[in-house]
This record gives sequence, structure tokens and C-alpha cells, in this order.
Amino acid sequence: MASKPINMSEFPENNPPTRILLGPGPSTVDPRVLRAMATPLLGHLDPKFVQLMDRTQELLRYVMQTENSLTIPISGTGSAAMEGSVANMVEDGVPVLVCVSGYFGLRLADMVGRYGGVLQTIQRPWGEVFSTSEIEEALKKHHSKVVVIVHAETSTGAKQPLQEIVKVVHEMNAIIIVDAVTSLGGIPFFTDEWDLDVVYSGSQKCLSCPPGMSPITLGPRAIEVLNNRKSLVKSWYLDLSSIQKYWGKDRTYHHTAPISAVYSFYEALRIVAEEGLENRWKRHRENAEMFWDGLEEIGLECQVPLENRLESLTTVKVPPGVDETIVRQRLLSEYNIEISGGLGELKGKVWRVGLMGYSSRKEYIVLLLAALRKLIK
Amino acid sequence: MASKPINMSEFPENNPPTRILLGPGPSTVDPRVLRAMATPLLGHLDPKFVQLMDRTQELLRYVMQTENSLTIPISGTGSAAMEGSVANMVEDGVPVLVCVSGYFGLRLADMVGRYGGVLQTIQRPWGEVFSTSEIEEALKKHHSKVVVIVHAETSTGAKQPLQEIVKVVHEMNAIIIVDAVTSLGGIPFFTDEWDLDVVYSGSQKCLSCPPGMSPITLGPRAIEVLNNRKSLVKSWYLDLSSIQKYWGKDRTYHHTAPISAVYSFYEALRIVAEEGLENRWKRHRENAEMFWDGLEEIGLECQVPLENRLESLTTVKVPPGVDETIVRQRLLSEYNIEISGGLGELKGKVWRVGLMGYSSRKEYIVLLLAALRKLIK
Repeated sequence: MASKPINMSEFPENNPPTRILLGPGPSTVDPRVLRAMATPLLGHLDPKFVQLMDRTQELLRYVMQTENSLTIPISGTGSAAMEGSVANMVEDGVPVLVCVSGYFGLRLADMVGRYGGVLQTIQRPWGEVFSTSEIEEALKKHHSKVVVIVHAETSTGAKQPLQEIVKVVHEMNAIIIVDAVTSLGGIPFFTDEWDLDVVYSGSQKCLSCPPGMSPITLGPRAIEVLNNRKSLVKSWYLDLSSIQKYWGKDRTYHHTAPISAVYSFYEALRIVAEEGLENRWKRHRENAEMFWDGLEEIGLECQVPLENRLESLTTVKVPPGVDETIVRQRLLSEYNIEISGGLGELKGKVWRVGLMGYSSRKEYIVLLLAALRKLIK
Repeated sequence: MASKPINMSEFPENNPPTRILLGPGPSTVDPRVLRAMATPLLGHLDPKFVQLMDRTQELLRYVMQTENSLTIPISGTGSAAMEGSVANMVEDGVPVLVCVSGYFGLRLADMVGRYGGVLQTIQRPWGEVFSTSEIEEALKKHHSKVVVIVHAETSTGAKQPLQEIVKVVHEMNAIIIVDAVTSLGGIPFFTDEWDLDVVYSGSQKCLSCPPGMSPITLGPRAIEVLNNRKSLVKSWYLDLSSIQKYWGKDRTYHHTAPISAVYSFYEALRIVAEEGLENRWKRHRENAEMFWDGLEEIGLECQVPLENRLESLTTVKVPPGVDETIVRQRLLSEYNIEISGGLGELKGKVWRVGLMGYSSRKEYIVLLLAALRKLIK
């Protein structure tokens, strides 16, 4: 039997244009991280790789501000850790309250259903945040055992205050899962101080690492839930009771870790730690404010009021009479700048601009504002 | 609130020793692929990235020898595509026959249970292969709708003939899922000619790409099963009905693709296509034979008889009186060569040597044989 041939001229070397990534992720990756990925591979059970896994976990604990033992990057993009949180904390018949005020709340609700949870939702218009009393009321009504909430909604640019809500959730004997995909490494976030039970994030936002690793951490209450499950976790790949044996002391083989992705993640975490979290948060805040001021100067408005506005991702209202897709296309083709359009309820109404990690830079902001000014004329 | 500090001196730059990877995977990655990974990132919805996705799919169709439209790399390591196959083809109450003659058959059986399938297994001692009549008999008894079988068992080094079995499976109105993790790109494999329904593989074996992408393809019968499911796929991340909309014409956002991993995978597939499948298969065969002859010369025996012996992964019997772990440790520390020990039933009894993709090279084989000769004295 002979194989069917292929014409190689249709498959040239991949030499893409160099983009400035100011959308909702991936953000621009630091050249140091790109170089780290080109390092020749160790085997996934090599003692040198195991040492690197330990160091990666320790750096991740710093970035997540936690001492949780089960703190690891899951081998997949942000959605994998999102699903991992639900898959491990939810089983058939468990009442789960999902707070929906954007696209990712909706996705979480979808996942809860797939994992057999009894789905309860509270809703807010996209871009708004939830009050503690709303959540308290819903918990009293539904007796939910798990509450799922998004800290930084990538689809709306709203920032959800968490500390008061967490207290109420725990008073009602429930646990809380927090989506920190667009906040971790960009804005103040304290897993232990805030007493969070499950936190997950992505590598390609404020950590400025290529997508492919998604950090997750489980606190003591979540570990108890995991250990007291009545059924196996439905997903083998995302079963933390097995994965933790590979990342933990046992080093029991689970799946082959994506070696190069771990290399990139380690280097990205090193960069965060070198800058220091406080400095990094301050930089994100100052650059965001500079951007918001600049938007005002060129006559553009933000979708989210200042008090709940996220530093790492800004939703900008599309002015009347402007075709938002043409502006984005021209930014890309003429300036090599990527920003994004709205999702769901905000489709066609906003642009989404991410100033995350390496992409939170003065020179990018000045350039984007200058280009936008020309294109919305 | 102030963040807890970290001592950077504990987190030096990652500069691992350069290993020669002759274990069961990852195999050594071609420097071209390492360089490709260091390419700056495009956004995951950038038209240039979408073009690269198309090209990657087309190359993957060549490597898998298929014209199946749904032919994509899943964003995860090999186990993710393994689970994806089960998750999409199995739902509550579906009778599934899993053929177990090694570690990965056992893992598949575990997954089938998690996805609600009625698990039926047939077993063979590790290292042996199944006959067509055994499978026919089991199908008649169990009326299975799905048969799952491993083409190349990474844990045993046995190669399962498939063509006759596939005919029987289809005559009994079942579909077949084939694990080609350790065969794809290394030994003859024809998805369409062999009339296979679902095939999945990994990137880090005979394709010599870093782990993190796992190819999967679905033929017409499998697409029908997918379209006629009564329930949602339990895993959101692995739901092919959604993923195919992102990789297909719709380009509907599902999850953020691991951009750099796609870059590496595209380059690895280009290298396979440049060499040509026939040449590549021939190289793997010739190098394997050279290795087997060399083993005989130094007094070592293969675990699997020649007729079912896999070219890409050889299980070598540990001779009496030799401590297999010490040999492996010395190979690693003195020669920078990684080989692996046995799994499960073969633990302590064999070494596993992978000659896969870039690692299937004359110079590596000569070196390994010379080193082994010294170490088993």
C-alpha cells in the first residue's frame, strides 16, 4: 500500500507578521519566554524536570499568593482549568450557584450541567457586578454547596469584588470557585488572605506566557470536597486526585507533561517574581489609567464605570456611525495591532482592549491611541 | 494588603542538560521545531493564524492518510485525545468493548467507565496481540457498539494488526477507535484505506514534536455517532461538536488555541511530509532492525516476538542479575541517554527503548548499544 502524496509548496515555513497583541489574550509574550521554549526537551520523568516542576509550583504559589499544596498548572488552555474546577468540585445532584454577568459565566453554567450539578444561576446585565446581599439571598433560597464567580470578566471588563462574598459563602457552608483568568498577575489577588477555595487562571493573559498551561489551586475546604466525593471525577484528564500524584511527592505517571510549555511557564513566572507582584499591579493600574485618560481625550467612552473597571481589560464603547470591524481590521493590517470586538450581548457595541503582562506598556498605549484617533475620524 | 515575598535565588534560569531521548516519549525534538516555537505569537483568531490552522489540518490529513474533514490536533497531550475519543463516542448505557493487553488498554477501560459506557473487556497477556476471531466472538456475545484497541502499545512494544479486525467490527455494526499514539508517523498507517472510524495519536512520539498537541480524526461512521448522540458530551473542553466549529469554516470561538504548540506541530508535520511517509517508515524499520541485531550481539533479548514487534518502541528483557534501575540511572547520568523501565506487569522486567521520529538515528543506536554493553557487564 502506498501513501497518498502531498505538494510541499503549499506548506511554506511559518513566518507570521509581528503583532502587538492588545486583545483579550494571548498577550504579547516576552522574548525571554520565547527563547525558553526553544530549550531542548527533558523527559517528563527526568529528575531535572521533576526539579523544575517543584520550582514552577513554588513560583506559582507566590503568584497566586497561597501556600496550598495542590497548586499546579493544568496541561491545557484556560478553559481546561475552568472545566477542571467544575469537574472536581461538582458531581451528580450537587446544587451549584453560578453568577452570570458575561460570557464566561455562561460557559461555567454549561459546564456545571455537564458534570451533573443542579444548576442555579443569578444574573446581572453584562458589565455589572454582584452585591454580597444578592448572593446571600440566592444561597438561602437554593442551599447551594458550590458558588462559581468570575473575578475579572474578559467579555465585559468588569471587576467583581470578592472578599465580602467569600465570607457569606463560607457562613452558608458552601465553597467558592473563582475565575481569575484575566486578573492573576495583573491586579491584586490573594488566594489565602481572601480565603478562596478554588482558583484557576490562564497563562496567556497577565502572565504573558503562550496559551497551553492553566494554573489551578485548591484550598483545604476544596481538598475535603475532593476527598469526600461519592463518584469518580468524570474527566480522567482533569482528575486532580490523580494529577496531584504526578505533581506531588509520588510522581506517579499520569499524562506526559507538555515539557516546553512548562519551560515557558516557569520563565514567565520568573519574570513576574523578578518584577514583584506589587510593582506589577502598580504598572497595570498606571498604564490602564493612562489609557482611560487617553480614550477620553479622543472622545471615546468606557463601558464599565470606574469603580468596577478592570485594569487588565477595557471595554470601549464604539461611537455612533463607526464600523467597529473596519477599525479592527485596519488596526491589524496597517499597524499590526490586535484588539478584539465584543462577545454576546456586547457584540458590535464595544472593542475589547487588553493591557496585560508584557502588553501593558506605555509605548503600545500611545501607539494604539494615536492609531484609534485616526481611524475613528 | 501586601504580597508575601519570594527569594529569586532559588529559581535560577532553566538550563537543562541536553538529553538523547530514547524512552517511550517525548522523543528528541528537531532543532527546526524548537526554533519554530520561539516565533512571536499571533492572536488565535488572526487571519494569519486561521490560515496556519488550515495548513496544519491539511498536513495532518496527509500524515494520517485520510480525507476526513474533522481532522485536528486537540489542545492537550496524547491522553486528551484518548479521552476525547471516548468522550465523544460513548454515552450512558452504550456497550463498549476494550481490548486490554497493556497499560493503555487499562486506561481506556477506566475512561469508558467514567463516560457512562457499559464496559466489556477482553484481555491478553501484556505484549501479545488479539486475533480477529477473539474479537468477533466478544462482539457476538456483548453486542458492543464501540470497539477500542491499541495499534502500538507503548507499554509493551507490541503491534496489533488491524485490517481484518476492522472488517469484523463493521460487519457487526460497531465502530472502532484506534490508539495510534506510538505508531503515527513511524510505521505504516492508513486511516482511510483501513476504514478506521476514530484515530488519535500524540505529538511527542514518532512526530517528534513537544507534547501538548494530540491529533484526532473522525470518519463518516463516527461523525454519525457524534451527530446522533442523545446527551451532550460530558467534557466541554473535549466536545468535538464545538471544537470542530472553531477548526472548521465557522471559526466560532471555543477555547484559545495553544498558538506556540500549533507552530511547533505545523513544523513537525512539515518535516514528516518533506521526508515522505514511505521514507520515514523505511527509516524506522531499518533502524529498529539494526537495533534488534545489535541487542542480540550484546546478549540481550526482545520481549515481543519478531512478527508483532513494534519498530518505534522495543521492550528489552532485563538479564538476570542486572539491576535495571541502576542501568537506567547510569545511562542518564553518564551518557545523557534516557530510556525507560517497564510499566505494570512488565515493571522491573524490561527496558523500553523508543526509536521514534528524530530519535530514530543510527548514531544514537550505536551509542546506546555501546553504553548498554558496558553497563550490563
